[in-house]
Amino acid sequence: MILAKVIGTVWATRKDERLVGMKLQIVRPVELDYTEKVDFLVAVDSVGAGVGEVVLVCQGSSARQTELTENKAVDATIMAIVDKLDASG
Amino acid sequence: MILAKVIGTVWATRKDERLVGMKLQIVRPVELDYTEKVDFLVAVDSVGAGVGEVVLVCQGSSARQTELTENKAVDATIMAIVDKLDASG
Amino acid sequence: MILAKVIGTVWATRKDERLVGMKLQIVRPVELDYTEKVDFLVAVDSVGAGVGEVVLVCQGSSARQTELTENKAVDATIMAIVDKLDASG
Amino acid sequence: MILAKVIGTVWATRKDERLVGMKLQIVRPVELDYTEKVDFLVAVDSVGAGVGEVVLVCQGSSARQTELTENKAVDATIMAIVDKLDASG
Amino acid sequence: MILAKVIGTVWATRKDERLVGMKLQIVRPVELDYTEKVDFLVAVDSVGAGVGEVVLVCQGSSARQTELTENKAVDATIMAIVDKLDASG
Repeated sequence: MILAKVIGTVWATRKDERLVGMKLQIVRPVELDYTEKVDFLVAVDSVGAGVGEVVLVCQGSSARQTELTENKAVDATIMAIVDKLDASG
Repeated sequence: MILAKVIGTVWATRKDERLVGMKLQIVRPVELDYTEKVDFLVAVDSVGAGVGEVVLVCQGSSARQTELTENKAVDATIMAIVDKLDASG
Repeated sequence: MILAKVIGTVWATRKDERLVGMKLQIVRPVELDYTEKVDFLVAVDSVGAGVGEVVLVCQGSSARQTELTENKAVDATIMAIVDKLDASG
Repeated sequence: MILAKVIGTVWATRKDERLVGMKLQIVRPVELDYTEKVDFLVAVDSVGAGVGEVVLVCQGSSARQTELTENKAVDATIMAIVDKLDASG
Repeated sequence: MILAKVIGTVWATRKDERLVGMKLQIVRPVELDYTEKVDFLVAVDSVGAGVGEVVLVCQGSSARQTELTENKAVDATIMAIVDKLDASG
């Protein structure tokens, strides 16, 4: 999983019908000290994360392993909100 | 998912038979302000996106999770047309 | 999918038994004007592409979604030969 | 698989319910001489690896091929603790 | 698939139980003239490749499509030993 910060939302009314009702969040990968990196991706939110929160994003087929995203055209899912890190690196 | 802009179309008459009838669009990833990045990929269009539209592209096995692309040799699918973004990053 | 040019062939007599009879082509990603990029990969050919032809390569689990490659240890498949592109980017 | 060193732990109380009880470790890819690279990712630990240990991390759908991670939204799993390497490169 | 050279072996006694008995080889991607690139990965060997041999490595879920690796936490498998290449690029 990657560590990322929620920085916004995407609105899309014309979309694959299985995606109706999903919240599409813009997330930006962050360093261990939560400094934002330069890239971003769009992920479905399965845990109710708000803008500014640091989250874990799961990608690939594993992004479909939540009740919300099963069998959906989703390749990135926010599946945890980070409370804190403890890193010695 | 990645944010991208549709910039063209690929014509291919000789292709795997399961792909007959699919529209193959050329998409270029964009920044949050829709500035085009330098790379591109080819994606199947499942939502009727036209050239110039900003879309979401789903990759990997999840690209097969639409009615159109199920069980097809497709690793990138346009599954939403973006109306607008709201980003604070 | 990525746009690539077939630049050669790999011979391998000792291989996983499910791969016997498959043609392993060397492909090099290209730009929209067919200029070759610097990297390359090896893909199974499901459409009879010859050296010099521009093709589409499907990667990941989707590379197994052709009759030829089903249930095979194959992560890249040539699934279309490109006739032409129309790109405005 | 990639070679990595465990450098810390992520705490996340709000997460997808299937992930409850899993240990989320921060791992940093390393060179063959165990020098740390600059990036990091978060992986579920299926083998009881501690901080400072050098491990193998399996990614993608294969990360779900352990008893612990089956059908979970997990895209990286520590599946082995490295005793030693023998490399001539 | 990627072209790579076997450069060593990983020993790991503590590992996911499904991986017992598998040979974990260190492989380094190579150019078409077999010059070694700078990175490396660890792959399960399904074809009996020795150190110094040039091989094809299959990644992702397709790495599990051999009799040896089925349902295992393996994301890279050596599935062919290269006899020779014929490349015009």
